[in-house]
Amino acid sequence: MKEFELIKRFFTEQAIKRKDVLLGIGDDCAIVTPSERQNIAITTDTLVAGVHFPHQTSARAVGHKSIAVNLSDLAAMGAEPSWVSLAITMPEADLEWIEEFCAGVFDLCEFYNVQLIGGDTTQGPLSITVTAQGLTPVNKHITRSGAKAGDWIYVTGEIGDAALALKDIFNEVNVSPQYQKSIRKKLDYPRPRILVGQAIREYATSAIDLSDGLMSDLAHICSASKVGANIVLDDLPISDALRDTVGIDKAFDIALVGGDDYELLFTASEDNKVGMETALAHLSCGITRIGQLNGSGKITTTLDSKPVSINAKSFEHFSQNID
Amino acid sequence: MKEFELIKRFFTEQAIKRKDVLLGIGDDCAIVTPSERQNIAITTDTLVAGVHFPHQTSARAVGHKSIAVNLSDLAAMGAEPSWVSLAITMPEADLEWIEEFCAGVFDLCEFYNVQLIGGDTTQGPLSITVTAQGLTPVNKHITRSGAKAGDWIYVTGEIGDAALALKDIFNEVNVSPQYQKSIRKKLDYPRPRILVGQAIREYATSAIDLSDGLMSDLAHICSASKVGANIVLDDLPISDALRDTVGIDKAFDIALVGGDDYELLFTASEDNKVGMETALAHLSCGITRIGQLNGSGKITTTLDSKPVSINAKSFEHFSQNID
Repeated sequence: MKEFELIKRFFTEQAIKRKDVLLGIGDDCAIVTPSERQNIAITTDTLVAGVHFPHQTSARAVGHKSIAVNLSDLAAMGAEPSWVSLAITMPEADLEWIEEFCAGVFDLCEFYNVQLIGGDTTQGPLSITVTAQGLTPVNKHITRSGAKAGDWIYVTGEIGDAALALKDIFNEVNVSPQYQKSIRKKLDYPRPRILVGQAIREYATSAIDLSDGLMSDLAHICSASKVGANIVLDDLPISDALRDTVGIDKAFDIALVGGDDYELLFTASEDNKVGMETALAHLSCGITRIGQLNGSGKITTTLDSKPVSINAKSFEHFSQNID
Repeated sequence: MKEFELIKRFFTEQAIKRKDVLLGIGDDCAIVTPSERQNIAITTDTLVAGVHFPHQTSARAVGHKSIAVNLSDLAAMGAEPSWVSLAITMPEADLEWIEEFCAGVFDLCEFYNVQLIGGDTTQGPLSITVTAQGLTPVNKHITRSGAKAGDWIYVTGEIGDAALALKDIFNEVNVSPQYQKSIRKKLDYPRPRILVGQAIREYATSAIDLSDGLMSDLAHICSASKVGANIVLDDLPISDALRDTVGIDKAFDIALVGGDDYELLFTASEDNKVGMETALAHLSCGITRIGQLNGSGKITTTLDSKPVSINAKSFEHFSQNID
């Protein structure tokens, strides 16, 4: 009991004190006061040890990732993150572990000026559920359902490295030492694309974050927007690490179906193409155009301008977002 | 996998469609649009099977209770519940179980016009984390910290029955058949005191919901408000079931330290006593004055106007709210 009381203290020692938080941790509820010109975006994701991250993942990475995957959902709506609630269930009150976990949580929260406003600490098998909230100007959020045939498809960063890192951990591939640190960082410390989400708010017709894998997440946009898509494999942003480790054909497969990238996938019309690419040029995050939507209702891929079929078996974990 | 996909459908089949929910389940985030005249109260609670409810608890009760304990926190702030996010981790995709669980969730949500706006479904040992949000008029919420020496202490309903039901389940007491149904209902289907919370918003100096036990939760108010308290045992609202089962002395102990009541404990000044009692007279929920705050910094109890010490060992579960 006493140890769990001590754990609560770690969560109150945060640097961020937002003006719109009237009451933070310490009462039955937090009280926040949003501006009248903003809507609120809300998302919830659970990470279960052994399902969403390997058991050997460091406490700091678990803390970072539990916040990052939720901020990534906010990024996909074009929202500015504001408040998070964190419920952690852990097998025992391990104070060293929780200190490192909180460091991972608070580093990311401080970077994005996000305040932890509450939560719960319970005993049981390790899992973390975060509810993150963010602000969007009224009616300026991006959905999955606004895309049209003819729109261009974009993705941030490079894709497939997180899936490669998982394969490396489970000894399914042999990653050269020069790449191991960088791909492990992509898996353990994904950067939510918050600034990109806000920059594309004026231009994008749809957006989603890549958690289940490119094909699977693109299918969500196609389904919600009632469109089809073609992906130009030649244009996929694949890292040297991925290509050098598994060869280019297998790299395509991993980039298309590997999950856990937490990059943004989004679409924009021909009319907004130049404006959006210019707006994004100022951000340090790479953006790649990887294909185009069409009216087919199906997702196809081409290589060297010829249709190819891919070995698309979606990344399998148990997580099923209902939001 | 397919079963977990099916489970998602249960969560989308709800009757409540609030006007302030622009986008519900089905995108990366929900989008809500609160009124400018309202603040938002936010709370998160996790229920772990075997810790917060016995493993044999019915799916419907688990669904009800996971929402109820969170709405109870909103009630303690005087908030009107609006939106909930629900993350469930379950060992296997049991469709019959989840259907009953959802019935429990939605019955309560519909009663209070609360919309489920998102969540997550993952595989693992059974636990449920809910984040509930509610609305309060700007600066009208009740906290734990506003109480003053001299204020009267009130409690809703009867207390100790949920703890008695737990003892009955674990065969620590022998409850007469005539009482079993009613006390089991108090444990499994607690009613969050939403209307009381809103009615006392104008009068109460502090409020908290009874989850850990009267002594423990009163200590939170005393600590936050820097006051002491005396409880008049003669005045405790104890049910016939509790008194008849364990006798009056043991009944006092259970009422003081048994948890899981989800009644409201609140305080009001002498000046507001009549106004508040009148406002509450219209509600069907019983209200009892059980003592008075003082400047001692300690919590004492009296019986027949004489000081008595009680056998106060707080109800032990692992839950430790950090909000």
